[in-house]
Amino acid sequence: MNFLSDNAYGVWPEILAALERAASGPVPSYGADALTARVETRLGHVFSRPVKAFPVISGTAANALAIATMCPPHGAVFCHAEAHIAVDECGAPEFFTHGAKLVGIEGEHGKLVPARLETALSHYLKGFVHHPQPAVLSLTQSTELGTVYTPAEITALAAIAHTHGMKVHMDGARFANALASLGTSAAAATWAAGIDVLSFGATKNGAMGAEAVVFFHAADARDFEYRRKKAGHLISKMRFVSAQLDAYLEDDRWLARAAHANRLAQLLADGLNHVDGVALAHPTDANAVFAWLPDSLARRLREGGAEFYDWGPPAGGRTLVRLVTSFATPQADVDAFVALAKSE
Amino acid sequence: MNFLSDNAYGVWPEILAALERAASGPVPSYGADALTARVETRLGHVFSRPVKAFPVISGTAANALAIATMCPPHGAVFCHAEAHIAVDECGAPEFFTHGAKLVGIEGEHGKLVPARLETALSHYLKGFVHHPQPAVLSLTQSTELGTVYTPAEITALAAIAHTHGMKVHMDGARFANALASLGTSAAAATWAAGIDVLSFGATKNGAMGAEAVVFFHAADARDFEYRRKKAGHLISKMRFVSAQLDAYLEDDRWLARAAHANRLAQLLADGLNHVDGVALAHPTDANAVFAWLPDSLARRLREGGAEFYDWGPPAGGRTLVRLVTSFATPQADVDAFVALAKSE
Amino acid sequence: MNFLSDNAYGVWPEILAALERAASGPVPSYGADALTARVETRLGHVFSRPVKAFPVISGTAANALAIATMCPPHGAVFCHAEAHIAVDECGAPEFFTHGAKLVGIEGEHGKLVPARLETALSHYLKGFVHHPQPAVLSLTQSTELGTVYTPAEITALAAIAHTHGMKVHMDGARFANALASLGTSAAAATWAAGIDVLSFGATKNGAMGAEAVVFFHAADARDFEYRRKKAGHLISKMRFVSAQLDAYLEDDRWLARAAHANRLAQLLADGLNHVDGVALAHPTDANAVFAWLPDSLARRLREGGAEFYDWGPPAGGRTLVRLVTSFATPQADVDAFVALAKSE
Amino acid sequence: MNFLSDNAYGVWPEILAALERAASGPVPSYGADALTARVETRLGHVFSRPVKAFPVISGTAANALAIATMCPPHGAVFCHAEAHIAVDECGAPEFFTHGAKLVGIEGEHGKLVPARLETALSHYLKGFVHHPQPAVLSLTQSTELGTVYTPAEITALAAIAHTHGMKVHMDGARFANALASLGTSAAAATWAAGIDVLSFGATKNGAMGAEAVVFFHAADARDFEYRRKKAGHLISKMRFVSAQLDAYLEDDRWLARAAHANRLAQLLADGLNHVDGVALAHPTDANAVFAWLPDSLARRLREGGAEFYDWGPPAGGRTLVRLVTSFATPQADVDAFVALAKSE
Repeated sequence: MNFLSDNAYGVWPEILAALERAASGPVPSYGADALTARVETRLGHVFSRPVKAFPVISGTAANALAIATMCPPHGAVFCHAEAHIAVDECGAPEFFTHGAKLVGIEGEHGKLVPARLETALSHYLKGFVHHPQPAVLSLTQSTELGTVYTPAEITALAAIAHTHGMKVHMDGARFANALASLGTSAAAATWAAGIDVLSFGATKNGAMGAEAVVFFHAADARDFEYRRKKAGHLISKMRFVSAQLDAYLEDDRWLARAAHANRLAQLLADGLNHVDGVALAHPTDANAVFAWLPDSLARRLREGGAEFYDWGPPAGGRTLVRLVTSFATPQADVDAFVALAKSE
Repeated sequence: MNFLSDNAYGVWPEILAALERAASGPVPSYGADALTARVETRLGHVFSRPVKAFPVISGTAANALAIATMCPPHGAVFCHAEAHIAVDECGAPEFFTHGAKLVGIEGEHGKLVPARLETALSHYLKGFVHHPQPAVLSLTQSTELGTVYTPAEITALAAIAHTHGMKVHMDGARFANALASLGTSAAAATWAAGIDVLSFGATKNGAMGAEAVVFFHAADARDFEYRRKKAGHLISKMRFVSAQLDAYLEDDRWLARAAHANRLAQLLADGLNHVDGVALAHPTDANAVFAWLPDSLARRLREGGAEFYDWGPPAGGRTLVRLVTSFATPQADVDAFVALAKSE
Repeated sequence: MNFLSDNAYGVWPEILAALERAASGPVPSYGADALTARVETRLGHVFSRPVKAFPVISGTAANALAIATMCPPHGAVFCHAEAHIAVDECGAPEFFTHGAKLVGIEGEHGKLVPARLETALSHYLKGFVHHPQPAVLSLTQSTELGTVYTPAEITALAAIAHTHGMKVHMDGARFANALASLGTSAAAATWAAGIDVLSFGATKNGAMGAEAVVFFHAADARDFEYRRKKAGHLISKMRFVSAQLDAYLEDDRWLARAAHANRLAQLLADGLNHVDGVALAHPTDANAVFAWLPDSLARRLREGGAEFYDWGPPAGGRTLVRLVTSFATPQADVDAFVALAKSE
Repeated sequence: MNFLSDNAYGVWPEILAALERAASGPVPSYGADALTARVETRLGHVFSRPVKAFPVISGTAANALAIATMCPPHGAVFCHAEAHIAVDECGAPEFFTHGAKLVGIEGEHGKLVPARLETALSHYLKGFVHHPQPAVLSLTQSTELGTVYTPAEITALAAIAHTHGMKVHMDGARFANALASLGTSAAAATWAAGIDVLSFGATKNGAMGAEAVVFFHAADARDFEYRRKKAGHLISKMRFVSAQLDAYLEDDRWLARAAHANRLAQLLADGLNHVDGVALAHPTDANAVFAWLPDSLARRLREGGAEFYDWGPPAGGRTLVRLVTSFATPQADVDAFVALAKSE
């Protein structure tokens, strides 16, 4: 019963097969191979427009490189106060941007809202040399708290950013879960709503280590390739990152697998909702459940073999915990967990 | 007949099998898994002493992180003028060290010699605040020009570095080829000769994307883990990098495969040596042959299907070219190449 | 009636005289001169212990260099949400630290309190590689909102920081005003309360451009000198920065001049306090008055020749404004301002 | 007899007087004052075209900020192997550019020549992501070895740089000495010959600490102001840097004072040329003499009170020394030095 994170799980068999197919013979290195080109084409189909796409091997690299490409050292990046880029990347965006400022904004359920974004922006005067200059808005989809922005919500936030001359980045480490949840087109959830660049995650949903930075406007990619190289993220045998993405995108498997994870999270949430003393903290839009558990229950679940993270210190006899489901989480684990929770 | 680079070739079947074995079930992420621990142990056996080892996915990342861990922003890194870190990483060491200076030193056949190192060091006054302070000596093994330092040569250079209070880094992107060529123990070729940290490469010799930064003295690793994270190089499903290294190191396969590459390079060198108008530029100690080819011959070889890089502009009717062999280069390619070269 | 900032005013005649005395003849450059040594000695007397002191020419340089010396790139700096380093230095600390994170903490009247510092620290897990590691606590004295920490308040905050293995920095751009307000010894207000390094400001209180970074423990200065040089802040004719500090510190003039500024701020606050519709926003501990002025009054004052900054957008017919007095502000200006405010 | 450096000397009385005139009353801070505007206008007259000019307080700051404004982190800066930016700024350009590469090129008498620049450029392939991309050519005028580029020499080098899409920077720490030596117009020696941005030095020629970064094309200044602020180089009481430059530029005094220094250097060179065993190493175009002195003579001169730097280790009984004259060096010192040299 591992609910620690979706990255605790492994790799799809289809991806392993793709790696094996890609393994023999010489091909051009550093991304000049046919598979890498095909991934860009496939992503163009997914998003219903031509894109510039660059495979990388970690979500932190995807985020930091995408943001740095769009944000000067004297820029400011606006994001939710609990965004992964703000709290879980050990300052990678600051390193890659050479010292830009991340401005964390509070918002319920992990989501930014227009009014607070406007307020935050009002403290950064345009052209005032003492203030970092607003350069990027970064939204996480699905959010760190398991919720999902609607296209309308994204549109409203992106419009504010664009009005201020900023670019809009989406941290899509769990983009598959978000899109499976929304049921809209990939286009509607991204560029049509104002997203300029997307960290398209595949690792958490079953790749080995593969993400793509997807620019929806070629001009925005600017010096991305040099930044990727200089950061040690241009890998020589790129075909093996691309092979993962290629298999990942085939036949909409990525959405089906994400839908499985979402469905299990929903089951988990529904189950917990009927347990005495348990309170869900956020809507379960994607593949993560946040719940306040009585400390005695949490202890009992762990003793029963469940693994999950506390999402803060205990408070008044209960603790907020996070439970993440993945493409490979067995439904039996969810059923067993819920049964165990209800068993007293 | 692909002699462009050893990174043009793919992956060992044993490594694919290891990835498949590692692919199912949940395991701790970010390197807290059993495979990652086992790789460190294995490397300890290889080097006959306990080591601190950190898997990463590219040679540039390995080099830049290792060097940055040992070199402050106001430090200087001494290396051969043609070292990969100096000319082929788009300034990654400068980025990771936050602006340290790379001092390139000339030396025949891609190798540094003590006298020139001493001369270079004499221009950097210790404690003089206007000068970057000597912090790291970086040696490439095998070198960019296909030669190999003997343990005695390393010892002499490392001793100078240590006398100046510097640390010694080895860029071992082709360490397997070097060691297979030397026939000494891994220990004798590294820490026993004064190497403090090694970029232990596996990718060019048949991994998918796996290197290990190996510290021979635990204290030197300092804040490496934070640097790796901040650079986006701590990958979540670390088991898959470790699985590659684990399979790579099993049964000394890595040395046998490197020996194959070296043997082919030797065959190539021997063959070319008997072709009229061809002159070998450097000793063929490892898996790369550097030869001056008459331009007409180079053209004819390419027309016949051979791929290789020019290593500089044409000069006087001939061009220096580089021919690299790999663990997977077919001997038939070498034979065909030599036959074609001799065919006129 | 210029109340925009204390840095709008000029330079003491004694400092001009000192510059003139220092102007002739050759002396060693880059700080190896006698005046620079004497400043360090003088500061030792001021603080009743030996110090390592480094003159620089701007407060931003002093802060960013001091903090960077004590904070690794993967570190976190905790400060008040409205601290100058957080909002008015265009990200200088992030640049100088190579990407550390500034964590802004709310607190009434510009002051941090222990409980909120503890809460903020609780989100940064020690040794957890995904989190920037707490490295520095920075306190501003006097604060950006014109208040002054008592030694007891500093002691409580610094103790928490030290318990977490952090260093404590004081941004003393207006240290003179704070100390004049407290009436304690300089020692009691700094190292005896747990301050490790102080940006000792002189510019706002009447120097031309002179601050000193004062380390109370020599070992903490580490590589400061290299950082200063690498940032272009080691000036060749250092004697002229030191001459300013030397004259500044002579005969406790610096405290007397700061006391003048404080007294005028007090007069201003007292005067405004009796004006209908005006409300003081913060205690006037030092040389800045923060007051809510009816918009009509603010307009009338400006029309009457008063200059001052709005400290936020208008709200409900009134605006928060900042009025700063300096060593050179004429009392007549304060009297005129108050009279004008009362005149309707 | 101080010939250590021109920065060992103090400040003109006219500059002290200007500081005194500027010292009273409130004026806008951070460069919004009238004096700063006037300096830009004056520099426009000096260079016979409108310029964007930014005062800073050190030559290292001027160089590093100017270069960083024109060079991305993945860029390369080409300069003479002995350029101040390459050897005497502790890596400031690498810090400010966030890790660009400085490519040092050899050249006689401290001067670059077109052929070697072309050769160096040939190793940096345009658009090849593994190579730093040529971005800036930096020339020092007068050079570190006391020589001066003619406008024709600059034109030839700048043309190559522009052909490669690079910008051209001039490190003019001793621009006054160079221009006084050339006798041409300031325009002819800079933008008319292809210089895009100039570090216009005043400190070594008699200011206290004042340089101006002068952009000849406004568009090139881009984000300079943010970079200056972020580096702690936007000083609050800017009027005092500007007052120095204003007085410096008045009535062509700066050229007259530099001519004095040049004349003394010529006297020194002529005198030494007639001393047995002494050999001049470079032409004495400006205010520095480089001479090989027998070690016995160097010792005797120092015992007689002369101060100067060795410019390398002793070799074969003699040592290369540098003797710098300044605006304030007494002619008596030169006469005494030459007499002492000849006295045996």
